[in-house]
Amino acid sequence: MRHFLEVEQFKPEEFIELAKRGIEIKNGASLNKNGLSIVNMFFESSTRTKMSFEVAEKQMDFHTYNFDVTTSAVNKGESLYDSILTMKALGMNIAVIRHQNNHYYKDLLDIGISIVNAGSGSGEHPSQCLLDMMTIIEEFGKIQGLKVAIVGDLKHSRVARSNAKILHELGATIYFCSPKEYYDKEFEKYGTYKKLDEVIFEVDVLMMLRIQFERHRNEARHIETEAAYLRDYGLNQRRYHQLKDHAIVMHPAPVNRDVEIASRLVESEKSRIVRQMENGVFARMAILEWVKGE
Amino acid sequence: MRHFLEVEQFKPEEFIELAKRGIEIKNGASLNKNGLSIVNMFFESSTRTKMSFEVAEKQMDFHTYNFDVTTSAVNKGESLYDSILTMKALGMNIAVIRHQNNHYYKDLLDIGISIVNAGSGSGEHPSQCLLDMMTIIEEFGKIQGLKVAIVGDLKHSRVARSNAKILHELGATIYFCSPKEYYDKEFEKYGTYKKLDEVIFEVDVLMMLRIQFERHRNEARHIETEAAYLRDYGLNQRRYHQLKDHAIVMHPAPVNRDVEIASRLVESEKSRIVRQMENGVFARMAILEWVKGE
Amino acid sequence: MRHFLEVEQFKPEEFIELAKRGIEIKNGASLNKNGLSIVNMFFESSTRTKMSFEVAEKQMDFHTYNFDVTTSAVNKGESLYDSILTMKALGMNIAVIRHQNNHYYKDLLDIGISIVNAGSGSGEHPSQCLLDMMTIIEEFGKIQGLKVAIVGDLKHSRVARSNAKILHELGATIYFCSPKEYYDKEFEKYGTYKKLDEVIFEVDVLMMLRIQFERHRNEARHIETEAAYLRDYGLNQRRYHQLKDHAIVMHPAPVNRDVEIASRLVESEKSRIVRQMENGVFARMAILEWVKGE
Repeated sequence: MRHFLEVEQFKPEEFIELAKRGIEIKNGASLNKNGLSIVNMFFESSTRTKMSFEVAEKQMDFHTYNFDVTTSAVNKGESLYDSILTMKALGMNIAVIRHQNNHYYKDLLDIGISIVNAGSGSGEHPSQCLLDMMTIIEEFGKIQGLKVAIVGDLKHSRVARSNAKILHELGATIYFCSPKEYYDKEFEKYGTYKKLDEVIFEVDVLMMLRIQFERHRNEARHIETEAAYLRDYGLNQRRYHQLKDHAIVMHPAPVNRDVEIASRLVESEKSRIVRQMENGVFARMAILEWVKGE
Repeated sequence: MRHFLEVEQFKPEEFIELAKRGIEIKNGASLNKNGLSIVNMFFESSTRTKMSFEVAEKQMDFHTYNFDVTTSAVNKGESLYDSILTMKALGMNIAVIRHQNNHYYKDLLDIGISIVNAGSGSGEHPSQCLLDMMTIIEEFGKIQGLKVAIVGDLKHSRVARSNAKILHELGATIYFCSPKEYYDKEFEKYGTYKKLDEVIFEVDVLMMLRIQFERHRNEARHIETEAAYLRDYGLNQRRYHQLKDHAIVMHPAPVNRDVEIASRLVESEKSRIVRQMENGVFARMAILEWVKGE
Repeated sequence: MRHFLEVEQFKPEEFIELAKRGIEIKNGASLNKNGLSIVNMFFESSTRTKMSFEVAEKQMDFHTYNFDVTTSAVNKGESLYDSILTMKALGMNIAVIRHQNNHYYKDLLDIGISIVNAGSGSGEHPSQCLLDMMTIIEEFGKIQGLKVAIVGDLKHSRVARSNAKILHELGATIYFCSPKEYYDKEFEKYGTYKKLDEVIFEVDVLMMLRIQFERHRNEARHIETEAAYLRDYGLNQRRYHQLKDHAIVMHPAPVNRDVEIASRLVESEKSRIVRQMENGVFARMAILEWVKGE
């Protein structure tokens, strides 16, 4: 029985193989259809991840069920373990779960149902990492030798950590650009802390992160702060033109427009933000195929 | 790419053609099946409209997805534009949207996904208008020469406006009956303001409107007020018997029973209220067929 | 037109026939597929019941719709009667309903849509009763002569009443064990009020009930109370070993772990709690087949 939980469970090369399989599926590779049952359990808000899993599931002819948290027995105090035990008893083969706890899946692995992690607190978001790798590979054909700037709310980003690790191990050069309060020493082992304006000229990939306002409990959003953020750490018109011709701009979305990126640049020529969302469906197909063990 | 947004985008004759297509489908006309994907996005409460779209979609073999507003990235501040951009990237072909803003769709038309308006604030509700026309045509075979009373909360009714316009342009005589505070001067160009008891004897169609209590922010519901409303503007037993033999009673539902209509008359012989709901499914099929461009 | 409403609508033997049909389906009996439409309307929280109906419906190729209470016209004051009238008009053939009122279905039976009761207040929960009977029959092949202890929050349990009646009429001996404040005189006609420790040695079936904290409006949960409950009325390690070798433990779930049952015993050898959930899917298939009239 396979679980898809953390980027760390794969060797970087294996993870890239999975990304390449996503690209194959996107380009028309045929998938085995099947009659397995999947339940989607989202304990935190999501549009992109939840719907792209749903689309992948229906395209692959899974029986799809949505566990409605707000009307479930969770309201009667049921634990996650007991909910998953129930899902297994009801005939589910795979549970796609987003949960607020970083390691929610630790106790769920022996129940007899495959767990697919669709985001765990501020810990892991491996399917987002996979679609990011898909997008980079699709563009450049390789990781080795690329220069990547990861910019913004590093500390709260479950994706930044995974992406940094894989990119580093496969030979990319990484720059981290962020306000001091959004930075974390743990990134030092993957790359170098830099001012955005020092590296904007040379990067191949500008990977912007979303400021996760909903995880900044005690900080209100201020217009003046947001304008300052865009000026110091965001992608504005000036920096866009400083990018190399073939450079691409990525962002996991939803974008805080005019904070991380000037609104008019979200759908600009170098932006791959819409492409990332498109790739998300195929990345999830590759994951589900892998979990089934084919 | 076609959008279904406002009654005004059609010539009245074209709109009636669409109503007639709904009647054909109801009577068994075959529909092209298809593998397109539809997402239903309801930002305001709905039973009838939402479910009749869902039934139409599944009967026509669309892949159907429901965008769950309460658990979506809208909670992270995502704009409607960005949500629709996401839907397009995830492979959706059509978005059926109900939204609180009258002109929510203005910025969405070039994204590359067909928009079907399932109700916009107090502005438009063209699919309700279509099923109303279907119901009248099915009964009388024509609009020309009919006498129609539109009764009740005219000011807050997005349907009254559309229905009045089409009925007027196609040669019906229209009477408006309502408390002064529910009336609006703009209706003068389509018909005449009358007491209900002056016209009850002669109308072919008695079109009752729902008092939209949920849009009357500062007004509480009072039993005495409701009884008075029924007495002065509602359909009670006395008025029911004053109607012509072939006259029909319509209401968009949900009915406030014993306010707009005496409860026992909701399912009476002259009532077409249940018929309207039945026709709603076929009207939506005709809309989806039209949007696909067949 | 058939409705599935109350255990009392069946003779006990007929109800057991239905349970046996559930077992046949579980063992591979073929089902007629069909194109009927079902709407699930859950006005109270549920995981097991709602999802097991959904699984049964999809396995039987029904068109399945979920009525979303939180975004429905119920928010505009629509009555249950009018909601069901709408479901009928939209083409639904069967409505699966959970509702807080004990007799919500009384006014709904002549609308022309089959009602399946998925739990009514503290009144009835006949599909749970059916799966319980399935589980007992599957284990012992008969009811006659069995000794059953029903333990816990009897007063608030809609299942206890139905199970007690059927077991009694088919010749089982029943013991009721509960705190005085959870007991009700009405159970006297089905069996005997006993201390759990007096009967633990001799029962074939230990049927634990969930303390329905959410129905105990004015009582807070206290750790000390819960520990005392487990000691006096719960299944702990000592009592587990006092059970006969072939005895089974049942619970409708969700379990309040370490209150009704020591957590480590929930999945123990004598426990049929997971089996009950598995059987729930097949019991619902048998119900839907019966409602269709085949």
